[in-house]
Amino acid sequence: MDTSSIGVAERQYFTFAKDEPMSLDSGESLGPITLAYETYGRLNADRSNAILICHALSGDAHAAGPSPEGWVGWWDDCIGPGKAFDTNKYFVICSNVIGGCQGSTGPSSINPKSGKPYALEFPVITVADMVRAQRHLIDHLGIDKLLAVAGGSMGGMQALQWTASYPEHVRAALPLATTARHSPLLIAFDEVGRQAVYADPNWNQGDYYCGARPNTGLALARMIGHITYLSEESMHQKFGRRLEARERFGYDFETDFAIESYLHNKGSRFTERFDANTYLYVTKAMDYFDLANGNGSLTKAFARCAKIMYLVVSFTSDWLYPTYHSKEIVSALTAIGADVTYCNVQSSWGHDAFLLEVETMTQLISDFLSRVVVQHGIAVA
Amino acid sequence: MDTSSIGVAERQYFTFAKDEPMSLDSGESLGPITLAYETYGRLNADRSNAILICHALSGDAHAAGPSPEGWVGWWDDCIGPGKAFDTNKYFVICSNVIGGCQGSTGPSSINPKSGKPYALEFPVITVADMVRAQRHLIDHLGIDKLLAVAGGSMGGMQALQWTASYPEHVRAALPLATTARHSPLLIAFDEVGRQAVYADPNWNQGDYYCGARPNTGLALARMIGHITYLSEESMHQKFGRRLEARERFGYDFETDFAIESYLHNKGSRFTERFDANTYLYVTKAMDYFDLANGNGSLTKAFARCAKIMYLVVSFTSDWLYPTYHSKEIVSALTAIGADVTYCNVQSSWGHDAFLLEVETMTQLISDFLSRVVVQHGIAVA
Repeated sequence: MDTSSIGVAERQYFTFAKDEPMSLDSGESLGPITLAYETYGRLNADRSNAILICHALSGDAHAAGPSPEGWVGWWDDCIGPGKAFDTNKYFVICSNVIGGCQGSTGPSSINPKSGKPYALEFPVITVADMVRAQRHLIDHLGIDKLLAVAGGSMGGMQALQWTASYPEHVRAALPLATTARHSPLLIAFDEVGRQAVYADPNWNQGDYYCGARPNTGLALARMIGHITYLSEESMHQKFGRRLEARERFGYDFETDFAIESYLHNKGSRFTERFDANTYLYVTKAMDYFDLANGNGSLTKAFARCAKIMYLVVSFTSDWLYPTYHSKEIVSALTAIGADVTYCNVQSSWGHDAFLLEVETMTQLISDFLSRVVVQHGIAVA
Repeated sequence: MDTSSIGVAERQYFTFAKDEPMSLDSGESLGPITLAYETYGRLNADRSNAILICHALSGDAHAAGPSPEGWVGWWDDCIGPGKAFDTNKYFVICSNVIGGCQGSTGPSSINPKSGKPYALEFPVITVADMVRAQRHLIDHLGIDKLLAVAGGSMGGMQALQWTASYPEHVRAALPLATTARHSPLLIAFDEVGRQAVYADPNWNQGDYYCGARPNTGLALARMIGHITYLSEESMHQKFGRRLEARERFGYDFETDFAIESYLHNKGSRFTERFDANTYLYVTKAMDYFDLANGNGSLTKAFARCAKIMYLVVSFTSDWLYPTYHSKEIVSALTAIGADVTYCNVQSSWGHDAFLLEVETMTQLISDFLSRVVVQHGIAVA
């Protein structure tokens, strides 16, 4: 067994909807569309060992291994030889969502009609639209049926949407730290983040690609986000009331506390790699996410999913997507007779736990995938 | 018994530290200082029935009754004839904190040295400084010993600080939905609110009193605050995923959801009555608040408080000041042998519950005050 690490990840691109644009939930259409993606491991002979990994709000296609620039993938802890998503066994795919800013078509891409970046001319997209685009990629890779689709947070929404939209093309789904319906709390935080972007004079109604970027607003949005990814307990553990580079209070408006410094750093680093308009589009897609909407109920949304195996995971200290979200999913899936494994993981890491509880997640995910493989008689190494 | 309402509240002003400025925790000094205050009810013959009400971040001296402009006081539900703080029995005082913007000396006041508003020349103040100034007012009113000092949130911090700073001058304290030490979560939210103000170009390093005001930044800060004052449950009850003035998603960046509209309204209304620099100073004072700091421990901070009676109240759905904050206070007070009544009120209203659970609060507060009156043989009507 190869237990070495993944080599340098190679970013690939797939362009579709060149002649005929792809229809979107909004009624608008979009094309051509490029998806940036990476793959790890090898597709087996009957193309049955493919796992699609879906990223969260700020993620991208680079999920594992080092990038050519040396960046480690965002879920490298769980993707690789001998890891949760074992690349000795599985062919792992991760693509940047449409609306994104890391290689896939989004508001910062050139609008072929105008020859300029789309900016707010980009259509508002939904999680179902993201998944619709991924389906084209999976087809392109010659995969009729995914072994599994997995993700945390917005990645989990995509995983759920995949099973609702394309139940014949998914054997298993792993929605982690997620929801089937964005709550008013989630909408509220997203909206304040968007307002922070709008408030930046550099935002200029989204038309900033030729000038200064709305980094102050985007950093503010990111700081709000980072508060919500932690828990009270992890904040106490990591920061408490510790001062940053000061012996005592400054009695001024400079940085006093370590937690402040942490947020400043997270905010400013985010602006180096992320596009403010993408922040608007992707948060809007999450806020619109409500699997029951248009289906009458969550049970009806999952009506064709009875044969899919699910691993649903929530985390005790995740106050952004508290346990009740996952329980609603489990309840609906149980009602339609799906094979559901549910675990509410004891963790102090808040929403970030799905990335940080590596040992627990490795155990849960690898056991679950082994069960899927056995159930379906999949040939893996 | 007079059960009619309080008449129109009369705003009064007391100016002190005219010749000699008041020393502050920062080492700086401030003077002259004006406090805006209101009183309700009548001081009894031996001046023993006075209750000081301390306001929260966005509050002011107008706690009860209609203002001349018709605004109802922020705690009118609990202050008045026959109410929790029964003005037939008690003489109730409420003053705007120093650093404030509703009549008391703060960053928007004229700096006598320059003849212009202080702006950031105003010294950074602490909760202990707020209380130090209130002590001057209480002296001025001829009151040696307060029957009680009460408040929620930052008002509760002042109540605790009063007992630690001036134990000989307080018989009872009612710290509600509060803490003895601002947590990293609270600091984090406050800092993001401050960053929103700094990010507004109109803020201009605090020097905006002659020009356009940083209303966009202040509104953003307020929106963040309002998310934290609610609970998941109250958000679901009040808003859910209800759309605002739309039948279906707009697929644009206008307001879709009712929760968004609520936050926009709260944010913009706040800017009509509040000063952005005060927001900075008052949140900084809260972040600095840590009663144990400088005393070695919370128990030592309360060392001289054994004879004071306390009513400590927390609320089950308050995730901004969760129950553990109050339990730490109760634990320290119990250790020093104080008479402590503690109640963790079952409520779905989040942090706002201290203002909204009127029936429960009326019962708790009036029973507690009656017990204080009996204990000390106070002559009330």
